[in-house]
Amino acid sequence: MSEQEELMSRVPLAELRKSIREGRFQDQTGSLAPGKLQGNVVILPADQALHFSAYCQRNPRPCPLVGMSDVGDPRLPQLGDIDIRTDVPRYNIYEHGELKAQVSDLSEIWRKDFVTFVLGCSFSLEKALVDAGIPLRHLKMKAMPAVFVTDIETIPAGPFGGSMVVSMRPLTVVDAIKAIEISAQFPHAHGSPVHFGDPGAIGIADLQKPDWGPPTPVLPGEVPLFWACGVTPQVAIRKARPPICITHAPGSMLITDIDA
Amino acid sequence: MSEQEELMSRVPLAELRKSIREGRFQDQTGSLAPGKLQGNVVILPADQALHFSAYCQRNPRPCPLVGMSDVGDPRLPQLGDIDIRTDVPRYNIYEHGELKAQVSDLSEIWRKDFVTFVLGCSFSLEKALVDAGIPLRHLKMKAMPAVFVTDIETIPAGPFGGSMVVSMRPLTVVDAIKAIEISAQFPHAHGSPVHFGDPGAIGIADLQKPDWGPPTPVLPGEVPLFWACGVTPQVAIRKARPPICITHAPGSMLITDIDA
Repeated sequence: MSEQEELMSRVPLAELRKSIREGRFQDQTGSLAPGKLQGNVVILPADQALHFSAYCQRNPRPCPLVGMSDVGDPRLPQLGDIDIRTDVPRYNIYEHGELKAQVSDLSEIWRKDFVTFVLGCSFSLEKALVDAGIPLRHLKMKAMPAVFVTDIETIPAGPFGGSMVVSMRPLTVVDAIKAIEISAQFPHAHGSPVHFGDPGAIGIADLQKPDWGPPTPVLPGEVPLFWACGVTPQVAIRKARPPICITHAPGSMLITDIDA
Repeated sequence: MSEQEELMSRVPLAELRKSIREGRFQDQTGSLAPGKLQGNVVILPADQALHFSAYCQRNPRPCPLVGMSDVGDPRLPQLGDIDIRTDVPRYNIYEHGELKAQVSDLSEIWRKDFVTFVLGCSFSLEKALVDAGIPLRHLKMKAMPAVFVTDIETIPAGPFGGSMVVSMRPLTVVDAIKAIEISAQFPHAHGSPVHFGDPGAIGIADLQKPDWGPPTPVLPGEVPLFWACGVTPQVAIRKARPPICITHAPGSMLITDIDA
């Protein structure tokens, strides 16, 4: 962590929420509010939302649903004092699957048929692994983990479907066993890995050429472990091409009031 | 288990499914197809289904969602070779929250806007407890567990809400600890208990007067444990009074192809 990140991580949640709500903070949230659950955000009109809720139910590893709003209601009382129109640092607005705009406030474009979905992300999992003494190389590189499209098909629901996206973390065999054991206890943060070992077995041609993020080196004696990744629903949304869909901007997650 | 139950429990799943599908078996399913996941069934029109999926998401202990169909599609491929119009022994049909009919086939009344929800039930949990050597008194009594309405409010979603319903099982302290540990591993079968000890703390006035089922005696040295119960969503549906809703008839569950 840089000195600035270290300082930011000590800002109390209420203050942080206020500066996000007022549009003063529009940055990445990874190191903020340690111990609080952060989530991927997907906002869809009600006519798409039923399909998307089925998509999450059928694919809990890539899409662990931790919260779902009422139709048209911007609040998420189960996740805290949240107004989803203002409480994410930055939003991506997609029309027919294409990124049209990036904004920091949805108040002007909020609709009475919008439904918000919050999906768990891997931050809580990574914290638990680090706390257990398992070294994560991408964190030492101050980078996101290497992320790959696989040939594992998700179970479709209505227009949503497509390939599972995974993040890769290389570990020694002893740490891999520990990491599987620990991550199984975090079903809301993608749970246990979907694969380890041979990347080709899940359709990954070259570990040095991730689809997102820089490559993470795999050292001799290490095994690559592959966890389902929150990019999966974004790929599903691009494929479904709904007239409108709003998500958090990459890395700028919703910080909730609940413990991770 | 009676001799007849013992015989029935050995009928292969495919044969059992066929006799249910053809309307020849319309009875309780508790002792059938041991090791296979059985589920509570709720069928609602699409305009109610989005609310009900949010209700399940917010109340996973009473409403552990194990399957959800596409709109209008009677199949549930994730749970096996199932046609929900025929594969439950008996169905209850509710109109505006009132029981209107009990049937063994929905083919004639199936609608293109119906969505099926399958919720896990406590059978898998009870099997795991018994396998671990934990004695369950109601099974020895050949009865259902004592079931109570509590004053724990579920988190509402749209028209769905109301009190949590729980089932009670009395155990020694040592077995209670073991049962909590084991049941926590079955989130799809209501998971760990919501309470143990003082019934008054969750609004139960008299353990000898259950709202459903016969009373289960609590012996000296035993603690009553309370698990969230699948009757909860039925109470929520009665409260919501949707124009139409179809459920399994009590005890006549959907038997799936997947392992419990």
